[in-house]
Amino acid sequence: MERVTLAHGSGGIESNRLINDLFFSYFNNEVLCRQNDASLIKSISGTLAVTTDSFVVSPIFFPGGDIGKLAVCGTVNDLCVSGATPLYITAAFILEEGLNMCPLEKIVYSMAKAAKKAKVKIIAGDTKVVEKGKCDGIYINTTGIGVLEGYELSQKLEVGDQVIISGTIGDHGACIMSKRKHLSFQTSLKSDCSSLDEITKRILDISSNVRIMRDPTRGGLATTLNELLAYTDKSIMVYENAVPVKEEVQSFCDLLGLDPLYMANEGKLICIVSKEDSKKVLSALHQHPLGQDAAIIGEIIPDSSHKVYLKTSLGAAKRLSPATGELLPRIC
Amino acid sequence: MERVTLAHGSGGIESNRLINDLFFSYFNNEVLCRQNDASLIKSISGTLAVTTDSFVVSPIFFPGGDIGKLAVCGTVNDLCVSGATPLYITAAFILEEGLNMCPLEKIVYSMAKAAKKAKVKIIAGDTKVVEKGKCDGIYINTTGIGVLEGYELSQKLEVGDQVIISGTIGDHGACIMSKRKHLSFQTSLKSDCSSLDEITKRILDISSNVRIMRDPTRGGLATTLNELLAYTDKSIMVYENAVPVKEEVQSFCDLLGLDPLYMANEGKLICIVSKEDSKKVLSALHQHPLGQDAAIIGEIIPDSSHKVYLKTSLGAAKRLSPATGELLPRIC
Repeated sequence: MERVTLAHGSGGIESNRLINDLFFSYFNNEVLCRQNDASLIKSISGTLAVTTDSFVVSPIFFPGGDIGKLAVCGTVNDLCVSGATPLYITAAFILEEGLNMCPLEKIVYSMAKAAKKAKVKIIAGDTKVVEKGKCDGIYINTTGIGVLEGYELSQKLEVGDQVIISGTIGDHGACIMSKRKHLSFQTSLKSDCSSLDEITKRILDISSNVRIMRDPTRGGLATTLNELLAYTDKSIMVYENAVPVKEEVQSFCDLLGLDPLYMANEGKLICIVSKEDSKKVLSALHQHPLGQDAAIIGEIIPDSSHKVYLKTSLGAAKRLSPATGELLPRIC
Repeated sequence: MERVTLAHGSGGIESNRLINDLFFSYFNNEVLCRQNDASLIKSISGTLAVTTDSFVVSPIFFPGGDIGKLAVCGTVNDLCVSGATPLYITAAFILEEGLNMCPLEKIVYSMAKAAKKAKVKIIAGDTKVVEKGKCDGIYINTTGIGVLEGYELSQKLEVGDQVIISGTIGDHGACIMSKRKHLSFQTSLKSDCSSLDEITKRILDISSNVRIMRDPTRGGLATTLNELLAYTDKSIMVYENAVPVKEEVQSFCDLLGLDPLYMANEGKLICIVSKEDSKKVLSALHQHPLGQDAAIIGEIIPDSSHKVYLKTSLGAAKRLSPATGELLPRIC
């Protein structure tokens, strides 16, 4: 089977062959294939949103996705939760010498499919090859450009605003962990890796009172809620009973002493919206396959210490701190 | 000395500390520091140019620069040679567990300095940490956004068009190679790593007949000339005697049996311009410190096989093929 060699990163004939045969054939679009040092795209009117992410997930293939799908969805989602419509992404590959072409092709195919689904074009790319042992198969960077078509999210919270999660939490984290711990029993755990463009559009179409959206990836729901409070003078009360968790994720977490609130998600969003609009946002989410398990899980409370509290099923309130240390390296 | 740990890539408290203390303090600008999932930038009117590159150079510090300076200049230059004014870049880091904070800080400082010099803002970032042995210290991806303020380069060549190089060739390649081969003698070789924004602006201001600009990085002058011919029906004759090469680069190449025509540059550009405008472009280049050694090195000839020929100092013409195989991995 053909393998990646250092020559594929040389900028010479082999690099060109890889680009033409693999990347251009899957990512095919006229902007990319013009093959200039920079790609030219026509003027975009409106405020632009820009985000960048490198993906180093291990393993590179997992139930529900692979590093390619993740690299597209992850960047698309960062644009979506900023209130932007994703338009373009770039894709830069760091490949390890000796990587088989077959998984590489699967990953590239997967990126092309995810990009098509999210209606983004892959307009620029780069390939570097490093010596065996200087990478772990493949790392991918994607950078996304989108445009604000609706309103700019205020990022300002008001007491009584409702905190909505678009579905069950911890699916991606539990899935990756189950594949990494080499557990001897079979699980049905599957990553939730998906692009959120359709549901963020629905939310913004139906409500003009969305304050903040975030996708709770690394660090999970608890860490992301803490982060979004950083520049506010409010706090959040989360109702433990209301937080949707799949039974298999909960069992997996119970088994290993983990908390789904801190486990990564790759196809979920947090939406904080005015109390008045919360029911219609929830109902819009319920009508989409990716939002079927959406739930109101908490609310903004008048506590200027910008903390996240959890009202447990027993009725006690405890503080939910941001994650510290490293639960699982290379989750995304 | 403090070192990078896996916790710095967790998305939790340690990640946040690294972002705030290191990246924000050097890259400080209001767009970046708002710290959303995506950064919002005001509408840009005009055609946009977008480019992405990952940098895996080894060693990460070398005479004339480091991986940080290279990551900024490399992406800035891809925008410049497309005829665009660079505006924004993103910076995504893959760090190896155990990397010392001290070189990391030097690199970040170096990026901030290079960005300031090239008048670009670093508006979005990402940090991932991989386990020891899964990276080589640090890899950086930069993605650039620029705007076409002048005219769009035609990319069409006419017979008689002149090929200009902005300075001596092979400096970066020879410098990196000298540091990698662990040569026992001292050399004065220095990378030419610099941003080309000022000289591309001068060129475009003075001539409206620039056909193509390219920066001859990986694969060197010979490979880049071959690439730019790919979609044309013309060929190029290069005059060997006219190609500027520093004496120390030539000696180094002679010693190792290398050809400067295939060695990487990181602060040089090829400009193909109409014969009428070639003298004034050359003279504009000569007036800038980065263009002092600029020279007309060849011309477009009516040969539809789109090949690059070299008229040697002995008067013979031989074909200059694109690079094949791998001269030196991780040159950029």
